Amino acid sequence: MKPSHIEHIGIAVTSLEKVIPYYEQLLGQKCYSIEEVTDQKVKTAFFKVGQTKIELLEPTSAESPIAKYLEKNPHGGVHHIAFCVDGVQQALNDAEAMGIQLIDKTPRRGAEGLNIGFLHPKSTFGVLTELCEDPNKL
Amino acid sequence: MKPSHIEHIGIAVTSLEKVIPYYEQLLGQKCYSIEEVTDQKVKTAFFKVGQTKIELLEPTSAESPIAKYLEKNPHGGVHHIAFCVDGVQQALNDAEAMGIQLIDKTPRRGAEGLNIGFLHPKSTFGVLTELCEDPNKL
Repeated sequence: MKPSHIEHIGIAVTSLEKVIPYYEQLLGQKCYSIEEVTDQKVKTAFFKVGQTKIELLEPTSAESPIAKYLEKNPHGGVHHIAFCVDGVQQALNDAEAMGIQLIDKTPRRGAEGLNIGFLHPKSTFGVLTELCEDPNKL
Repeated sequence: MKPSHIEHIGIAVTSLEKVIPYYEQLLGQKCYSIEEVTDQKVKTAFFKVGQTKIELLEPTSAESPIAKYLEKNPHGGVHHIAFCVDGVQQALNDAEAMGIQLIDKTPRRGAEGLNIGFLHPKSTFGVLTELCEDPNKL
């Protein structure tokens, strides 16, 4: 496995409405997309800085993984890092062969139509790690 | 302020020796540099993925900011995000004018000889945020 770049950094926020203006100023640009991912029970907002997106994540339900993160980190914080790989299924297989515990054994659909799979932070020294690919670029 | 890219992601680890082999496998490359930053009381290890470096940070003293982070997050985790800007002093001034609390009012020297300045996570919705520039590229 050899990721080409960091596709995005997922940041948990309590309120997109409050946090989007901050990132618009910090990054000198407008948020280019807001999308609800019902599967993950989140509303997302995107920025792009060089090769990497900043993905703000607001929970839409108390059962959202982001809501659980915010219980422990009430101000918000970095939730996950996503590496772009060439073939998520193969990369998940590679990770499992390395002894890493997987959250997803097979890829599923994430925000922006990406194929994604998560590695368990217990196996990745505390960093929730996502592997992803854009199916439109295959 | 308009950062060009994410210069690095700082990841707190309890032991470089334990964590470097994991990232070498995940990223399909060897760690290219290990450096001690005495000012920050850390030992750092670097990888590069596209435009962005992964900077692993191991504390060398109980007074290190990384040691304090690890008290709260004993498995490790994402400690900070660093954006590359064109002029750290001006970017810090811009941030202050936005109402952001600064950790550094003027740039100081970070790992790899970068000029760096930190914004306070209380003002940045829980994400410790660094602004940096490479003085060799000015």
